[in-house]
Amino acid sequence: MKNKILLTFSLYLLSGAVGLAQFPGQFPGQSPAQSGDAKPSSLNLPGQRYPQVDSQRRAIFQLRAPEATTVKIHLVDDEYDMVKGDNGVWSYTSEPMDLGFHYYWYVIDGASVTDPASKTFYGNSRLSGGIEVPSPEEDFYHFKDVPHGVVSERWYLSKSANAGRRVFVYTPPDYDTNTTARYPVLYLRHGGGEDETGWSVQGYMSFIMDNLIAEKKAVPMIIVMDSGAAGGMGMGMGGGSNTMVTELIPMIDSTYRTIADRDHRGMAGLSLGGTQTFQTTQANLDQFAWIAAFSSPFQFPDVKTGYNGLMADPEAFAKQVKLFYLSMGENEVRWGGTRPYHEELEKAGIKHVYYESPGTSHEWQTWRRSLYDLAPRLFRFETEE
Amino acid sequence: MKNKILLTFSLYLLSGAVGLAQFPGQFPGQSPAQSGDAKPSSLNLPGQRYPQVDSQRRAIFQLRAPEATTVKIHLVDDEYDMVKGDNGVWSYTSEPMDLGFHYYWYVIDGASVTDPASKTFYGNSRLSGGIEVPSPEEDFYHFKDVPHGVVSERWYLSKSANAGRRVFVYTPPDYDTNTTARYPVLYLRHGGGEDETGWSVQGYMSFIMDNLIAEKKAVPMIIVMDSGAAGGMGMGMGGGSNTMVTELIPMIDSTYRTIADRDHRGMAGLSLGGTQTFQTTQANLDQFAWIAAFSSPFQFPDVKTGYNGLMADPEAFAKQVKLFYLSMGENEVRWGGTRPYHEELEKAGIKHVYYESPGTSHEWQTWRRSLYDLAPRLFRFETEE
Repeated sequence: MKNKILLTFSLYLLSGAVGLAQFPGQFPGQSPAQSGDAKPSSLNLPGQRYPQVDSQRRAIFQLRAPEATTVKIHLVDDEYDMVKGDNGVWSYTSEPMDLGFHYYWYVIDGASVTDPASKTFYGNSRLSGGIEVPSPEEDFYHFKDVPHGVVSERWYLSKSANAGRRVFVYTPPDYDTNTTARYPVLYLRHGGGEDETGWSVQGYMSFIMDNLIAEKKAVPMIIVMDSGAAGGMGMGMGGGSNTMVTELIPMIDSTYRTIADRDHRGMAGLSLGGTQTFQTTQANLDQFAWIAAFSSPFQFPDVKTGYNGLMADPEAFAKQVKLFYLSMGENEVRWGGTRPYHEELEKAGIKHVYYESPGTSHEWQTWRRSLYDLAPRLFRFETEE
Repeated sequence: MKNKILLTFSLYLLSGAVGLAQFPGQFPGQSPAQSGDAKPSSLNLPGQRYPQVDSQRRAIFQLRAPEATTVKIHLVDDEYDMVKGDNGVWSYTSEPMDLGFHYYWYVIDGASVTDPASKTFYGNSRLSGGIEVPSPEEDFYHFKDVPHGVVSERWYLSKSANAGRRVFVYTPPDYDTNTTARYPVLYLRHGGGEDETGWSVQGYMSFIMDNLIAEKKAVPMIIVMDSGAAGGMGMGMGGGSNTMVTELIPMIDSTYRTIADRDHRGMAGLSLGGTQTFQTTQANLDQFAWIAAFSSPFQFPDVKTGYNGLMADPEAFAKQVKLFYLSMGENEVRWGGTRPYHEELEKAGIKHVYYESPGTSHEWQTWRRSLYDLAPRLFRFETEE
């Protein structure tokens, strides 16, 4: 294992180029690493050497702040002291981290600010930096030499808000060439404190779908990513549910070549977006037949009264709901309600699929894997199986 | 004038909603302003009250940094001291600023960092904050209730780099419904230190084009925005010229319904992107018939030897080059070579169009106006006039 990593690293130094599957992001670091076998995070801006990640999954941060008295780093959910070194450069090396994407920012003498060395990501109701811990065994979310769909930024007039609203829409690789085909649609929600950019940026959803479709593991589908925040903060319960059904779905169905019925429409969401998925689909089961919640924190539909009582009749529920999908990260604690809910569903005999992401927590690697596991199950009908 | 602004502001307070043309950006501020008639910048993240802009076009910045010794703000091209007030909040009020978009960041005890209250924008080879000074007399770049095109993020394999490369493509409102129509293509470059996101984010190019096309002032066209940086830093001369012709244009022509000839292909760019436009079109005049440079800093084609000597024969040049378009901001000094070049072209009798943006400098308001002035002139042929 160690030899393999050293070999990979040597090739990286020699080639000066970026392997197709090595850096999923746009901006590979440009300079050789300094400390041990650490390499610049794939989310660094061009020319930025820090932050770095080593083969032990430790993240190494450096920030020049010569006159600062205290510098801390906020990484995932905690704050850590950085240490001042020569030339006014502060540094911090983390413990081994979970695989995948993590938010971070700096607190300099009490000011909470964003590292200009990193691409920025909307999470925690702010823009912050991000660090990517590579997962050597996984490449399902990497850019590969396959046909690519696109993610379109679309603005439309929301009549209820009397304002422009933005939505991102993934269309599969054959959408523009197969001009008479019609497609099923998945509505895909971000988490609390995130926004409609989350799935296409942190989530690499387009690479995940491109790869699945190229391998014929998933049927080509349109994926719509809107904001779950009705008011702006991204934390509202049920945010956007009403306008999804009254404004967004009609706009999508009149703009794209969709199959505009409930059998070909699904909704999925992560964390708070999972809760919103439960709310929206319970209130509008005539609109959605495919339902998925990743790491939903609370408000799981009651096994007796959920879905307007439909859950009390498992056979009827399974007939109406083509897929009831739940997932969480193996290490989730704080928002770990999904596993007990899965057990409750089992006991009640309610048909569903439960996926658990090994070794990850309430973060994007769990949700990337969840989408990868979910998408092949979507819009498959009995007759096809 | 003052009354009109006060009225507008009062309506804003009363309505709690965002007027269609008032905030071009996604994130209107949510709280009423505090100082005089200042309002949150339209580029603030949800819930963020600062920075603000008042009716005198002054920008007001506030940052909480209770333990900092010195805090400066880097605004446009200069650094200014901020002043510490109660509760550890530092503030700075600018002189009246030019209309439109301006980059800024903070320097806290020597650390150059990004304000987490602002959306972030790639410029100066980094992500920084942005502030938008509204222009009450202009709404051509605002979201309006018209048919909208989309901006698609497309990844493709660059064979020369053996890596994924990202490009943004604007398709006009009727592209998806008018499925047999073919369209001319404009290749549109950002400036030095910026990237392929510049035109669709800072430039509001999609709103500009949607509005022009809705008014039938511009013909529907595809606009391709790639990175002018071959190596990553965005400052490379001629960056990407080769791959534009060898890789990008063939990919675009095989992926979109383009009219794939030089008469229906143009290139434009701002600042360094203008210089790249001169370089690329001089080396590939068989590929482009429409040429535009906004605020190009240097390397203007020589009036005798430019375009392989074609410029020495103004009649032949005008026949080959359907449009030779130049623009700059009235107040540009440092990179103000365009006006003298325009005068030189006049003297030499070389047909061209020159536009000067009133009261603006080497910034985005100049370039938004330049695109608005340029686009109606593109892909118009003698027979149409």
